[in-house]
Amino acid sequence: MNEFDWIQTYLRPLAGPEGLNLLDDAAIYSPRDNQDLILTQDTLIEGVHFFKGEYGAGTASRLMAVNLSDLAAKGARPIGYLLSIAWPNHLSGSELQNWMAAFSKGLKTEQERFGFSLFGGDTVKTDGPMSISATFIGVVSKGEAVLRSGAKIGDGVWVTGNIGDAYLGLQLAQDPSEILASNPKPEDLWTWEAAFRHPTPRLLFRKTLRSTATACADISDGLLSEAGHIAKASQKRLTINLHDIPLSSASSWWSKLKEEETAIVSLATAGDDYELLFTAPPEKDALVISGAAKLNLRVSKIGIVSDGQGVGCLDSNGNCLTIERSGYSHD
Amino acid sequence: MNEFDWIQTYLRPLAGPEGLNLLDDAAIYSPRDNQDLILTQDTLIEGVHFFKGEYGAGTASRLMAVNLSDLAAKGARPIGYLLSIAWPNHLSGSELQNWMAAFSKGLKTEQERFGFSLFGGDTVKTDGPMSISATFIGVVSKGEAVLRSGAKIGDGVWVTGNIGDAYLGLQLAQDPSEILASNPKPEDLWTWEAAFRHPTPRLLFRKTLRSTATACADISDGLLSEAGHIAKASQKRLTINLHDIPLSSASSWWSKLKEEETAIVSLATAGDDYELLFTAPPEKDALVISGAAKLNLRVSKIGIVSDGQGVGCLDSNGNCLTIERSGYSHD
Repeated sequence: MNEFDWIQTYLRPLAGPEGLNLLDDAAIYSPRDNQDLILTQDTLIEGVHFFKGEYGAGTASRLMAVNLSDLAAKGARPIGYLLSIAWPNHLSGSELQNWMAAFSKGLKTEQERFGFSLFGGDTVKTDGPMSISATFIGVVSKGEAVLRSGAKIGDGVWVTGNIGDAYLGLQLAQDPSEILASNPKPEDLWTWEAAFRHPTPRLLFRKTLRSTATACADISDGLLSEAGHIAKASQKRLTINLHDIPLSSASSWWSKLKEEETAIVSLATAGDDYELLFTAPPEKDALVISGAAKLNLRVSKIGIVSDGQGVGCLDSNGNCLTIERSGYSHD
Repeated sequence: MNEFDWIQTYLRPLAGPEGLNLLDDAAIYSPRDNQDLILTQDTLIEGVHFFKGEYGAGTASRLMAVNLSDLAAKGARPIGYLLSIAWPNHLSGSELQNWMAAFSKGLKTEQERFGFSLFGGDTVKTDGPMSISATFIGVVSKGEAVLRSGAKIGDGVWVTGNIGDAYLGLQLAQDPSEILASNPKPEDLWTWEAAFRHPTPRLLFRKTLRSTATACADISDGLLSEAGHIAKASQKRLTINLHDIPLSSASSWWSKLKEEETAIVSLATAGDDYELLFTAPPEKDALVISGAAKLNLRVSKIGIVSDGQGVGCLDSNGNCLTIERSGYSHD
């Protein structure tokens, strides 16, 4: 199966009308009145951002998740994406064909889950590791995008979901011996693995986010690191109460096996959680909570915005911890 | 110099207001009333689409050219782009810093030449060859984009510029011995090298294109191959007169050293010409010619659109040639 066959067989059915049947090397999008467009791009390299040799649906889904999470943080609805794939030369024949089929299945699943379509892209071959990049296009009503720069003094700092499960899922995938030695429950293993393998970008929270949040960031590079980005863009200080960071019962159990504060810090600085960190004024608390409840989504207030800069992290005695590694960098 | 320093030092000055100071992992574009957006994406791999070890301004410029040429073919004006770069791990320290500086200089040059800005993107490291991808955003007035699918029976087939100079420039760069053995003039060498190294996407032709063309494609993958794409998208037949394909005096001299028709076919099937192939009804001929003349741009009518499918290529006796290789594929 060559590039052309792959495009015709697997990708063309994924294309929306904007993609012009993938015959034009370009897409056309006709914005509705009063729409702003949000554009984001993320690239994954085999062996760095996903495991070597994993060319299938899971990797397609991860590529979608990293991009969709950036749109979710803006309060945007995804409408389409352009996809660039460099397939490794060592794959050929039926092996390549099987991976192409599996990869496009992953794309299709995510498209159907959130309702967007393929606009176009590019397929090439490489002697190196697989390299995949997507550019996503999202829309919001004009002026309603949530930026990182809007945090105000007195705002609460909130986070969706549970933090750190994906990190433990990654540990399990890389070297399970240490975690397994502590004899976790089967359902804990499932929690961690699911968080790492099948993250859910928080796109459905967008309406609540737009009506309550002053600033927002996705935390797939680490909660504390992203808190720093909001602090910097907003020119404010974010103070996080370490013990208010929400953990699943699985991760809470794990952290109590360790020196607990160190364990929580390691969960809060790890990446791969496709959750949202946002700031909102206290008078919006009820709206945040009811909006999340409708989605069965956990939300937790974990800190406060104040005058100043940077990120402070308080232990249970109210002492400010020094965090040396504030996020995972793939650089 | 790490990714963050590079972004701050070299990329942030290239960002427009849409890029939110590159602090948000996303860009916002607020379309004007009555605008359509054109989106296109192209990826270049070291050793496949550009020479191994060439990490500098020339490669940045090539990445821009392949994308801008796709926008030019739509009659669109570029407004911004997202850039994904995977830098090879073997580059580090001052060597990496020097390449980063040179690469961003190339980006800056093209931005200033055509008036667009950086919206965002992603930077990663790879164990493999350098891999770079750009997603460009262009605008046209609503409904005015030129597609590949609009060719009508009786339309003329036109091409801008000269064909094949870039192919000979590539030969010169890869293995100059054969060409040099035939003793070309120094200005011929310059013509070929300039066409390959410093292509000019035909963005300035967009107004004429929008008011005259029924279909258009950029021919960086080969003239005859793109004629096939227009034929397919338009469900028509394109017939090209081989001897009407415009050559520079340098390439014309070269083709006469060879079996001339075979030589012209090789020029017309090679890639790397950032010219436009378009169809237009005969009553627009004067507009096409005067529009091009204002830009000092050569335009040539090289064929006709008829009922049917595929591409025919006529020799000087009006016989239809069989073309075995209709374009260069990087697949």
